[in-house]
Amino acid sequence: MPENFADRLLDAIDTKGAPICVGIDPIVEMIPAAITDGRHLRNPDDADAAVDAIFEFTISVLKLIAPVVPIVKFQSAYFERYLWEGVEAYFSLVQEAREMGLLVIGDIKRGDIGSTSAAYARGHLAEPTFDDHEEVLVPDAVTVNPMLGLDTLTPFVDTAIEYDKGLFVLVRTSNPGSSELQDVLLATGQTWSQLLAEKLALVADQPGLMGQYGYSSLGAVVGATQVHTIESMRQRLPKSIFLLPGYGTQGATAEMTRRAFDANGRGAIVSASRSILYAHRNEKYRARFGDDWQQCVSAAVTDMHNDLKAVLKR
Amino acid sequence: MPENFADRLLDAIDTKGAPICVGIDPIVEMIPAAITDGRHLRNPDDADAAVDAIFEFTISVLKLIAPVVPIVKFQSAYFERYLWEGVEAYFSLVQEAREMGLLVIGDIKRGDIGSTSAAYARGHLAEPTFDDHEEVLVPDAVTVNPMLGLDTLTPFVDTAIEYDKGLFVLVRTSNPGSSELQDVLLATGQTWSQLLAEKLALVADQPGLMGQYGYSSLGAVVGATQVHTIESMRQRLPKSIFLLPGYGTQGATAEMTRRAFDANGRGAIVSASRSILYAHRNEKYRARFGDDWQQCVSAAVTDMHNDLKAVLKR
Repeated sequence: MPENFADRLLDAIDTKGAPICVGIDPIVEMIPAAITDGRHLRNPDDADAAVDAIFEFTISVLKLIAPVVPIVKFQSAYFERYLWEGVEAYFSLVQEAREMGLLVIGDIKRGDIGSTSAAYARGHLAEPTFDDHEEVLVPDAVTVNPMLGLDTLTPFVDTAIEYDKGLFVLVRTSNPGSSELQDVLLATGQTWSQLLAEKLALVADQPGLMGQYGYSSLGAVVGATQVHTIESMRQRLPKSIFLLPGYGTQGATAEMTRRAFDANGRGAIVSASRSILYAHRNEKYRARFGDDWQQCVSAAVTDMHNDLKAVLKR
Repeated sequence: MPENFADRLLDAIDTKGAPICVGIDPIVEMIPAAITDGRHLRNPDDADAAVDAIFEFTISVLKLIAPVVPIVKFQSAYFERYLWEGVEAYFSLVQEAREMGLLVIGDIKRGDIGSTSAAYARGHLAEPTFDDHEEVLVPDAVTVNPMLGLDTLTPFVDTAIEYDKGLFVLVRTSNPGSSELQDVLLATGQTWSQLLAEKLALVADQPGLMGQYGYSSLGAVVGATQVHTIESMRQRLPKSIFLLPGYGTQGATAEMTRRAFDANGRGAIVSASRSILYAHRNEKYRARFGDDWQQCVSAAVTDMHNDLKAVLKR
């Protein structure tokens, strides 16, 4: 197995045959009743019951998708919601996912000044060697917020190189208000995100990060909801693997994401969270599988896979 | 005691007589030997020993400063460095600080899209009402990263209003590379941070956030290392309390911070972390107090207090 994160990811996509990332956004109110059994309804702040339900649900989802999907993305916020108990569940589940052979992104969107970034990078990307603990596997990659400046990425890059990990830097997000600060036009004629992408390309293209397929372990988060944005970012960040959120619930289609892939169908992963995890709430799957939420999840992954394959083959 | 966060903070500054925020950045390698007793040196990844030392050190610091300082800021990264054990220590220490009568900022710099921001806001600002737990006191305010767009602040604002909490939004940071993305000139002639400040002023000036002294519970983080930046931001954000990092180690002086305060000497808090916490490593204090690190901490706070008082009186 190659050491470089970009290589590992591209190999895993080839093996599984699908550039799909499933986002693990565990929201106890949306988890199938078969799992929660009404537990969280007694008191929505009951962390023990909520974390138990989240743990059980996520393990089941991971088992369903591990054979067909190369990578998952854990959204830290839904674990931090339950303070340290949630954070403990986050790290346990990251480890479970890795032991099932999945690559794992920690969607933490951290970013701070130098020595503080270094502490975040250590905690979230470096496998600790505790005296009195079992081995702890932390994520293979994390998402990073670059607003504080490119200098603040250095500790993340250093840690990624040291531990053969990856980074996905926020460049252009998929939320409705993202354009307000990210698409704002500069005096140079570029948008702010375009400037960021150009600066980031220089960071991505360094020997310690580059893999054998010509892609860097420094990737970029680019909202998949606008075709022209994807094209403009792809042009500026030719060596970064794009993590494309927005598929499914946020309205991005496979056709929209096509521009992020190269001629070999490489260079991007399309991320879907709720449209997969909570497929049992979608009438389309409900009509076919009734209360069998696991069948709904599997069918949603298969549909997404076929949807992307049809577009990428052209 | 007023409910509004801005009012509580301004009252606390009056009571303690100093607009000082002490940043709790516990770095085990810098903690006095009297506390660590060489514990962390056996294995820097030994979370138990490191977290124990951090806990003991922070409690001692909090006891020293609680009588003279209104507010402390916990840097989440230095706790996350030790995974969930660190996060548990973070929340325990936040609670200890609040029980000593200190106001607490959680320096978490989170920011994400809508529903994810809501989960962060719940976890970090809302006191939970767990069935089977003692009362948990979480921070009075958190720092927020606005890069994803002003719409992503809404869940933080809603939670702040519901729980009478505060926010400090990153507007212009104090690190050397901050100018690269934050001071970049827009087609309109403003800088990116100036545009952000103008948009933020509209969010800050809403009834649910405004306190009786004319300040909003939505504050701003403005690096104190450049006078013209502080002036330009103060003009654009007249109702936000400024959290000014950079004093001490990062080179900001009291004179530089003066422009952030109004004619009544209100409207800002100056934050210092390492220059206070690790004063025992400063020759100036070492010469006077030798190995008595607690005397060094107290003297550093007193010096900072006098330094600010001299400038604010003019």
